[in-house]
Amino acid sequence: MKDRGLLIVVSGPSGAGKGTVMRYVFEKCPNMRYSVSVTTRAPREGEVDGREYFFRTTDQFIDMLHHDEFLEHQRVYDNYYGTPRKFVEELLDKGFDVLLEIDVKGALVVKKKMPETVTVFLCPPDKATLESRLRGRSTETEEQLKVRLDAAVEELKNAAEYDYVVVNNDALVGAEEIASVIRAEKCRTARRRNRSFLENLIYGGNTNHDDRSPHR
Amino acid sequence: MKDRGLLIVVSGPSGAGKGTVMRYVFEKCPNMRYSVSVTTRAPREGEVDGREYFFRTTDQFIDMLHHDEFLEHQRVYDNYYGTPRKFVEELLDKGFDVLLEIDVKGALVVKKKMPETVTVFLCPPDKATLESRLRGRSTETEEQLKVRLDAAVEELKNAAEYDYVVVNNDALVGAEEIASVIRAEKCRTARRRNRSFLENLIYGGNTNHDDRSPHR
Repeated sequence: MKDRGLLIVVSGPSGAGKGTVMRYVFEKCPNMRYSVSVTTRAPREGEVDGREYFFRTTDQFIDMLHHDEFLEHQRVYDNYYGTPRKFVEELLDKGFDVLLEIDVKGALVVKKKMPETVTVFLCPPDKATLESRLRGRSTETEEQLKVRLDAAVEELKNAAEYDYVVVNNDALVGAEEIASVIRAEKCRTARRRNRSFLENLIYGGNTNHDDRSPHR
Repeated sequence: MKDRGLLIVVSGPSGAGKGTVMRYVFEKCPNMRYSVSVTTRAPREGEVDGREYFFRTTDQFIDMLHHDEFLEHQRVYDNYYGTPRKFVEELLDKGFDVLLEIDVKGALVVKKKMPETVTVFLCPPDKATLESRLRGRSTETEEQLKVRLDAAVEELKNAAEYDYVVVNNDALVGAEEIASVIRAEKCRTARRRNRSFLENLIYGGNTNHDDRSPHR
């Protein structure tokens, strides 16, 4: 039987450079899968049910909510988005590490429901970089830019609620740090203890030096 | 100013393959230094004071003990060995990560005195491998081998006291896991919070979008 996978939440304000970093993380972690969210918004051209999203009606979504089928959910304007608990659990049980890219509020809800979740906050190296990244890709007015920058700084204040803070100075280094967090967390004694790893190691194995019955 | 380094304890029974793994870890971590122990045993040919050990008389050692100058110490037959606190602290303050290779008893003492210490236990993958490794390098009798194997299995029971357990199935993979633990621990929010990292990020930086005074 495969070991249960790790649930990882990565959050970060826009301008943190999450897209590039996470592309590298997925290259380093072939065992990792994205969680697929449930949404009530209409599919866009090319989107496939079960790949980009699970597309559901509002009635279906609310029904799922009543049955506590989400790890977290939120409303964005007129649409609902949610992380389906069963989908995530099944991937974890199959041994896949599962990545959730959700915001701070969702991250804290998931951490509370599943305390074994590893939460990572991705930061820009400083405010000047954050600003230039937001400026670099937007076609907005100065006023809109200021609103987005203030929102990003507001989000940064939540970093202390996360288990890890990774600074995205260089996308490859940041990705290596996130991959290291995943590798390291798999070695944490608390996780190994859960699956009787140590007992197997101490009492198991092909040797006749042990007169206790093997716990296997 | 450089960030303070990380204090890492690695323990493991003989037969865990610690020598090879740690050689690879040092290659991956150029910022890491060995702690140099104080000992009362006589220097062997080629050993240099301050490199292999700090060589001291028993009187000097006991005097250091009275002044609480050791992070941990022990007596092995007629000789004393100790980890000099000031030496370790100075390396950490300079920004070096410091490795202690000590036994379980010493590891728990250090963790208690300096709770920020990261403790890693290196295990063989199973008892059969442990036995064949012990057998491979020893010129002992079967009886002596059994004593050493039993001692190693006894040591494995302490693994649960460590923060991390790394299984040495393949020395390069084991080394990568230890290096990942070091990288990941440097990203832990609790450590970053200590050095006002987040405050600097949120309030600092070259931007005039913030009317609070920068905390730098």
